[in-house]
Amino acid sequence: MTHRVYCFNAGPAQLPLPVLQEVQQEMLDYKSSGMSVMELSHRSPEYAEIHTEAQNNFKELLDMDDDWKILFLPGGSSTQFYMLPLNFLAGGKKADYVNTGTWSKKAIKEANWVGDIQIAHNAANEDGKFLYVPTQDQLDLRSDAVYLHFTTNNTIAGTQWQDLPKPPTGTFLAADMCSDMLWRKFDTSRFGVFYASAQKNLGPAGVTVVAIRQSILDKCADDVPSMLKYKLQIEKDSLFNTGPTFPTYLVGKVLTWLKSIGGLDEMERRNREKADLLYGIIDADPEYWFTTVQKTSRSCMNVVWRIKNDETLEKQFIAEAKTAGLVGLKGHRSVGGLRASIYNAIPLEGVKALADFMAEFRRKNG
Amino acid sequence: MTHRVYCFNAGPAQLPLPVLQEVQQEMLDYKSSGMSVMELSHRSPEYAEIHTEAQNNFKELLDMDDDWKILFLPGGSSTQFYMLPLNFLAGGKKADYVNTGTWSKKAIKEANWVGDIQIAHNAANEDGKFLYVPTQDQLDLRSDAVYLHFTTNNTIAGTQWQDLPKPPTGTFLAADMCSDMLWRKFDTSRFGVFYASAQKNLGPAGVTVVAIRQSILDKCADDVPSMLKYKLQIEKDSLFNTGPTFPTYLVGKVLTWLKSIGGLDEMERRNREKADLLYGIIDADPEYWFTTVQKTSRSCMNVVWRIKNDETLEKQFIAEAKTAGLVGLKGHRSVGGLRASIYNAIPLEGVKALADFMAEFRRKNG
Repeated sequence: MTHRVYCFNAGPAQLPLPVLQEVQQEMLDYKSSGMSVMELSHRSPEYAEIHTEAQNNFKELLDMDDDWKILFLPGGSSTQFYMLPLNFLAGGKKADYVNTGTWSKKAIKEANWVGDIQIAHNAANEDGKFLYVPTQDQLDLRSDAVYLHFTTNNTIAGTQWQDLPKPPTGTFLAADMCSDMLWRKFDTSRFGVFYASAQKNLGPAGVTVVAIRQSILDKCADDVPSMLKYKLQIEKDSLFNTGPTFPTYLVGKVLTWLKSIGGLDEMERRNREKADLLYGIIDADPEYWFTTVQKTSRSCMNVVWRIKNDETLEKQFIAEAKTAGLVGLKGHRSVGGLRASIYNAIPLEGVKALADFMAEFRRKNG
Repeated sequence: MTHRVYCFNAGPAQLPLPVLQEVQQEMLDYKSSGMSVMELSHRSPEYAEIHTEAQNNFKELLDMDDDWKILFLPGGSSTQFYMLPLNFLAGGKKADYVNTGTWSKKAIKEANWVGDIQIAHNAANEDGKFLYVPTQDQLDLRSDAVYLHFTTNNTIAGTQWQDLPKPPTGTFLAADMCSDMLWRKFDTSRFGVFYASAQKNLGPAGVTVVAIRQSILDKCADDVPSMLKYKLQIEKDSLFNTGPTFPTYLVGKVLTWLKSIGGLDEMERRNREKADLLYGIIDADPEYWFTTVQKTSRSCMNVVWRIKNDETLEKQFIAEAKTAGLVGLKGHRSVGGLRASIYNAIPLEGVKALADFMAEFRRKNG
């Protein structure tokens, strides 16, 4: 019996066990090719099938129409932070950005290299903490912005948009969905671009899924270096150069797994059940556990909480949990406390094990 | 017994079997962590060890001094084609580029976004073919160039630099070594930067090894977007964002394997033995097999040849070889013919199997 833990890392994060088992099985000989997927040419029929099937499954899971293209690019969301404005804002065009924390700020920084950027809303409180996402009426939007950018989920603060924002007519939504891509269905009709590096809900680090509408490509600049040019990457189907084939293969497996469990409606049901379990424990005992995140902005992906403001107890919790096979529960270094990242691949059993551990810890360390 | 073929792909290419076996073994539980390497945090002690050990082994294999930093970046050599000039040539500074084929041309194209680029030598013949690499006295070099860039090996034409060029004093060498990195030792003292995406000699696609001297960083621009900024990537030890951890882990395994077989002197001996075997067969029977590559420029990585200018025979050769478990022997679509990529991981037995197949094919199809 293989030793496995529950991994509550913020990312790279746990992968579905059946996916890893298949990858292990296919490691030396993928579908009787006599080669590992890592050894397949990126222009071979075997790899083309992996690539195309992953694109099709992604679109199927989100009910996306033919206007959408799915790219598998290198460089993470951090590369998209620059690539997006470089393509759409050349010459100082306008875009509005919602600032809901660290990742939004990083996106804004790179956009400022290219465009005329306005902060549609800054959700920092007086202590610099990001404890909520804004409502539609809190957004200051320019009608002549090319796009409105936001970060759908903040892994560090534990906030998440429940109702997605509405951009003005003629402006499209652009989103960094790195930490909650495919946690549920959403209405893609308002979007022009959304992207996510894979290492939370989609697969391992090393590949970034970028969804982009072909009908907005006429807004893109032509004078863009090759690797950063959406038009070229679309024309070459993400294979302008040799892309991250093995991470993409993993993404394909995860998408197939998502379909096999019943698609995104079932995934959302499971994710809400997991999150409700943990928030329920925290809310039931607010003298001991507590979270400062605004209730309507709570993330179903990253549950961020404290034990009585007591760092010593928190350290003990993290250490004892690890011994019990529950790893990765330390909060981000910038905010401290505890964090359980309960992405798609964390089964309910893992969250129940954490819940049981919390009850026992509470009993022993009241 | 697992079915395995010999894979002569130009890249992604064959990996050492012991490496794949270890990866398979560790897939569900890396060193008793209870996690796959794909699930490890990029900031965990387990991953830090993988990352640092790979950097150290790379430097040890090439006897590199402390001035050198090793980066594991996303985006392939194609991203370096732009990143290198963006950092070093901002404001239109000068660099000289040797054009020895497709990959050189791609590097030159991206450099022209930023710098004042001169072609130090264009090795195309009147048919646009690249059948040699130039000698030192054929290079037109500017003494005030920041760097001299060249492509050490051309996978498509089958040419390779044997004697590396000498830049003027005050100019450093910069090289795309994508397809022959670590095939042998070389003198790094003339270099400022060299880089290679992993998928030929170093590992799977998805990570690019960039070696850069700290002592040249004062030549770098400061106003560079984060993901493309060498100074920042060095400061953050390639972990400004979540890098391609699993491909990097594979690179680490390949480097350990290289050390285990006796390092780069032994690797060069094996590579020359493999190349000599194939070129020997071709040279011994020039009425049947032939190659137009200049003898002193022949690549030890990619043997490119024809059968009598006979495409029908070549097609038959490729198909029958595949059936015999020798795959990937088709020449690049831009030049046709045959190509055997015999990178580090291809064992002598594989090349002997190809040699035997060639002899038998010749006998049957004289």
